[in-house]
Amino acid sequence: MKRLIPAATTLALSLAFAYAHATEGMWMPKQLPTIAKELKAAGLGLEPAKLAQLTEFPMNAVVSLGGCTASFVSPQGLVVSNHHCVYGSLQFNSKPERDLMKNGFLAPSLGEELPAAPGTRILVTVDASDVTGRIIDTATAKLVGKARTDAIEKNEKALVAACEKEAGFRCNVYSFYGGLQFQLIKQMEVRDVRLVYAPAGGIGNFGGDTDNWMWPRHTGDFGYYRAYVGADGKPADYSPNNKPYTPKSWLKLASSPLKDQDFVMVAGYPGRTNRLRLPAEVDFNLGWFQPAIIKAYGEELDLIGKATAGRPDAEIRMANMVKGLNNTMKNFQGQDASYRGSDILARKQQAFAELKAWVMADAKRRAQYGADFEAVDRLVAEQQATAKSEFLLRFATPTLLGTARNLLETAHQRVLPDAERKSGFQERDMLRQRQALEALDRRYDEATDKAISAHFLAQYLTLPAAQLNKPLLAALGVQPGMDEAAIKARLDALYAGSQLNVLATRLEWAARPVQGFETSKDSFIAAAVALYADDHRREDRDKELAGRLQQAYAGTMQALIDFKGSQGQAVYADANSTLRVSFGKVTGRTPGRDGETWQPFTTLRGITAKATGEGEFDAPEAELKAIHAGDFGSYGVKELNSVPVNFLATLDTTGGNSGSPVLNKNAELVGLLFDGTLDGVIASWDYNDQMIRSIVLDSRYMLWTMKFVDHADRLLNEMNAK
Amino acid sequence: MKRLIPAATTLALSLAFAYAHATEGMWMPKQLPTIAKELKAAGLGLEPAKLAQLTEFPMNAVVSLGGCTASFVSPQGLVVSNHHCVYGSLQFNSKPERDLMKNGFLAPSLGEELPAAPGTRILVTVDASDVTGRIIDTATAKLVGKARTDAIEKNEKALVAACEKEAGFRCNVYSFYGGLQFQLIKQMEVRDVRLVYAPAGGIGNFGGDTDNWMWPRHTGDFGYYRAYVGADGKPADYSPNNKPYTPKSWLKLASSPLKDQDFVMVAGYPGRTNRLRLPAEVDFNLGWFQPAIIKAYGEELDLIGKATAGRPDAEIRMANMVKGLNNTMKNFQGQDASYRGSDILARKQQAFAELKAWVMADAKRRAQYGADFEAVDRLVAEQQATAKSEFLLRFATPTLLGTARNLLETAHQRVLPDAERKSGFQERDMLRQRQALEALDRRYDEATDKAISAHFLAQYLTLPAAQLNKPLLAALGVQPGMDEAAIKARLDALYAGSQLNVLATRLEWAARPVQGFETSKDSFIAAAVALYADDHRREDRDKELAGRLQQAYAGTMQALIDFKGSQGQAVYADANSTLRVSFGKVTGRTPGRDGETWQPFTTLRGITAKATGEGEFDAPEAELKAIHAGDFGSYGVKELNSVPVNFLATLDTTGGNSGSPVLNKNAELVGLLFDGTLDGVIASWDYNDQMIRSIVLDSRYMLWTMKFVDHADRLLNEMNAK
Repeated sequence: MKRLIPAATTLALSLAFAYAHATEGMWMPKQLPTIAKELKAAGLGLEPAKLAQLTEFPMNAVVSLGGCTASFVSPQGLVVSNHHCVYGSLQFNSKPERDLMKNGFLAPSLGEELPAAPGTRILVTVDASDVTGRIIDTATAKLVGKARTDAIEKNEKALVAACEKEAGFRCNVYSFYGGLQFQLIKQMEVRDVRLVYAPAGGIGNFGGDTDNWMWPRHTGDFGYYRAYVGADGKPADYSPNNKPYTPKSWLKLASSPLKDQDFVMVAGYPGRTNRLRLPAEVDFNLGWFQPAIIKAYGEELDLIGKATAGRPDAEIRMANMVKGLNNTMKNFQGQDASYRGSDILARKQQAFAELKAWVMADAKRRAQYGADFEAVDRLVAEQQATAKSEFLLRFATPTLLGTARNLLETAHQRVLPDAERKSGFQERDMLRQRQALEALDRRYDEATDKAISAHFLAQYLTLPAAQLNKPLLAALGVQPGMDEAAIKARLDALYAGSQLNVLATRLEWAARPVQGFETSKDSFIAAAVALYADDHRREDRDKELAGRLQQAYAGTMQALIDFKGSQGQAVYADANSTLRVSFGKVTGRTPGRDGETWQPFTTLRGITAKATGEGEFDAPEAELKAIHAGDFGSYGVKELNSVPVNFLATLDTTGGNSGSPVLNKNAELVGLLFDGTLDGVIASWDYNDQMIRSIVLDSRYMLWTMKFVDHADRLLNEMNAK
Repeated sequence: MKRLIPAATTLALSLAFAYAHATEGMWMPKQLPTIAKELKAAGLGLEPAKLAQLTEFPMNAVVSLGGCTASFVSPQGLVVSNHHCVYGSLQFNSKPERDLMKNGFLAPSLGEELPAAPGTRILVTVDASDVTGRIIDTATAKLVGKARTDAIEKNEKALVAACEKEAGFRCNVYSFYGGLQFQLIKQMEVRDVRLVYAPAGGIGNFGGDTDNWMWPRHTGDFGYYRAYVGADGKPADYSPNNKPYTPKSWLKLASSPLKDQDFVMVAGYPGRTNRLRLPAEVDFNLGWFQPAIIKAYGEELDLIGKATAGRPDAEIRMANMVKGLNNTMKNFQGQDASYRGSDILARKQQAFAELKAWVMADAKRRAQYGADFEAVDRLVAEQQATAKSEFLLRFATPTLLGTARNLLETAHQRVLPDAERKSGFQERDMLRQRQALEALDRRYDEATDKAISAHFLAQYLTLPAAQLNKPLLAALGVQPGMDEAAIKARLDALYAGSQLNVLATRLEWAARPVQGFETSKDSFIAAAVALYADDHRREDRDKELAGRLQQAYAGTMQALIDFKGSQGQAVYADANSTLRVSFGKVTGRTPGRDGETWQPFTTLRGITAKATGEGEFDAPEAELKAIHAGDFGSYGVKELNSVPVNFLATLDTTGGNSGSPVLNKNAELVGLLFDGTLDGVIASWDYNDQMIRSIVLDSRYMLWTMKFVDHADRLLNEMNAK
């Protein structure tokens, strides 16, 4: 299952060594008319120019959930995405005696649709414009280091503030080509989102971690939200008086059956790819960082398992995190397996050497890019050294200390004029901040948090003394040489000394002035105050580096674009959570696993074959009965003698694409993207068009389940299902 | 992995509803000339008549290990079979500090080859002759019930005794078509068998229970024995002075590479199929007996796991049993999955109804078969009622009580003239009896045995009182209503009161007269004495039934053969552990699992992909290094860019075929049969030529492993490997 993968570094910096293949490319909608010929040849039935219009059908039916993609599928604001994308809301509405994650949920009527988890948003992209010249304006272009970072941030905030003057919209500046280009994206933000329907976990998560990234696959990974707005039709906070939103467009169900080799395209919000990264970054991320994450997540999962054993309430609180950790770990393990013994690094180094040789071969080019080339390697190395020494802190720091630091920063920032506040602490961010404080009640388990912190703190304390953060050690009251028992005793005292585990207390702190913090006896608040100076020292250090890196990296990217341009090749920008379109076709794969060929479709038969009645293969009895009854309705395919469940397609996607609508040549809905094959996870770094397949939920399986298993007739009628 | 499956009933009775398809049939060698045209058309390069000669190449190179098949592969008596067929000898020679099951074994020289596990035999079939008229002679044909069974047994013993006058040979009478026809099979019995070589468990058992019956498969399921004989070239007990046996023929390695769609054949000793069973037997075995075994074995495995936890020595003792239980359980589970919801029973009933209608439609046929038809259903029902009420006793009876009963029967039989003794207690059986007493030392763990006995005794005591065996309850000192603690206390006393756990004691008892038993205070000996009369009552009851059943069943089978003969169809006899030949071709399968197609070959790449470094996928480091080094020697296949590891073939095989040589059209060795796909396990009852595939170890993988992983150059030279 795909999710946004935690990024290795804070700035999206990259370098291009990959170019568009037949099925490669997550295209910006505005680029599609430039590849109209390829799209037509592949089978697209619409005018490609139509796909470049963000506010027209079909692109305006495609929305973001922040980390997942979704789409409008009815005139009443009904939104479909993946089961794993609505999972947080199933979790939020679950109690030990009402387990929606296990049993699913179907609102019998509009009035019974449930509020989604706090912070759930439906974001509709309405505009995307190039703002490179306004982010790196003439004045900024002359600045260096932290001054440059500050200026970029100031320009960005000004653009965002102007854009967000219109209520109900959210604007963000996105960096393309690692800081070389910038776009301002404007999105309508629906804040009243409700949970409408999700099948049982034994359908929506069928196969669980065992089948994750695998083929053959039989996961019914779908779930429904609905967008609600105020009486004026504009985004509003939750109210029982709100009405379903009427989108300008919505996707229609396919009017003809999808077949092997058919054209398909996917529109969504892919999170991040790293195909343009520097060799040193490939080496660091795949050689050190991701293996370190695999180890740490494995330990964290063990700790969570032990700490929550026998406590169903704690298990529910941690379920989402467990899912996320497992998912990322499996992703990184797959990348690790592909990377070890491969020639990826050698090829990247070779390509970079060629680029460097081209730059150095000409005096003018040397003058233009030489300094950036010299700087970028050094700066990346510096960034990596810091990342290494601070790596364990993300695990070792108690969650509530993070909350305390955030509350303290809020207090510091609140007294500044809005435009001068740091990103994340402006008025526009306050609602999300509050919701994060609320969500903690559902996702925090003290015993688990403490066990994780103690474990990783013990590891951290064994690092060379020069690498340790002394203010942090002082604030936590720990020091090298302490054994785990002593660390635990110290944490016991810290956790016992704080009231931040109480929501009301957190909300009170969110409104207090800095002075209140400085005299507080709350252990985590006091630690945050003690750390404030050092936190800002580190922040300034990172900003200094970021400014220098942006400059050097942008120059390197420009050199690459110019080098490839001189060869008549276009350079393809990495995914960055903005709206993109990929296209390809339905097709199996040879080889599959060793000794297999993969067929393009799986069927209901595979569900029966895999079902064990328990654990990850717990297909509900109602489904097994419906399969056995053999009524396929209008969703059966004669050649398969069954209903297609999942299919493979040559679509270039990545985490963040989860829930993306997959469309046929007429832009009708044929499926929901939810995963890629394991061999494909290294695609984030290195694309191989022979091996990479996206895994798509066939909408016929979704509709069959709705009709024959869950009897979701209200929704089927609303979607005009035959 | 295939093994002999415990038979549901003691007599092999059957009824035919299946006939030869293109790839169906386990042919008696003497039948092969009658299907010469089909064999030639399929691609056989030899004269089919050559395969009918048991004492000529290639059939005389194929030998039985009793439950497994093997073949001579060198002029020095080197024998190759499956890893799981030599597993007992790996276990026998293992100690906690020298785990041959895990690490494998390679004798550096002839002198360092290790004695195989006690009881290991290499059996070379030298003759097979029809003896129906001498088993059911004129006098016997007139007898009924127990008298008939006794007469059959007497005739059988006389034939066997005459046949075994020649030292070093073992003869057995086998029943075909459920007691309609009989053959006398004569086999040379090599008693000095030595363990030569087996790869590490991470190769020989790679994939373990997870991959068992599955494709794609990557198991290096091979191991080597050597046959030793006395200085006179004849079978002899183990002696350091024995010499390697020189077989008349041995198999040569393939001289050309095996490809997809190539003709292959397999010669071996398939244990049992049930394709000709009566509908009532299908219903009983698949509807009740096998599900009951699945449940009981599952419980037994749990009990063994708990009882041996933390005791490596006990784990090694129970390893072979655990393997066997798992294997049968998985087999029966596969059959159960195929059977439920299938129309197998309905088709059998329909076919039987047609046969009955044909018999009843004609006065002469009615007179000839009518009574047998009437009787057979009633007798089968009677047999099944007994099997149900006594089912749990096979689990509930302490192992040493079984040993005591056997020792007591030995004492009773020993005083009779040899020809009058019961089968299994004649002079010819004494060596095997002694070896069974010895083997117990390696396979018995008291704590485990007691836990199993207590668990199932508690279950047994809950049966309706009328079904319980009262003499047994009295002998064990248990009664209905006892809780498990009380049962355990009683078993503690019984186990503590016996010395049969000591080998020397067992061997002493093997020589004592009956009088010694009757005065013994040994708890299990005393229980055996107390049960003797009832044991014989039950034995007589079974013989009475067997005699009646043989008569009725043979008549029913004759009716079937005549019915089908009247339609010009041949009736194909079920497997019965005698030498058979199957033929087919190398080919994948569509569909594989749902969403897959199966390719015919797997490769070394799949080993790397599956290897986890632990548990069932613990490929040895030396192998992973050799794969990574990429030297395929002469065993690589260009199209695969690797060495083929396992392949699929349309060969009709079953348990007992394990280790069978798979031969190309010129009768050269291309692989070793070791498994079938899970969908195929129901094939024992119902053949489906679209779905059934045998799984074969490709000999190129075996040779590659010998050369590049284990450096078994001595053996490669001996086998003349290129």
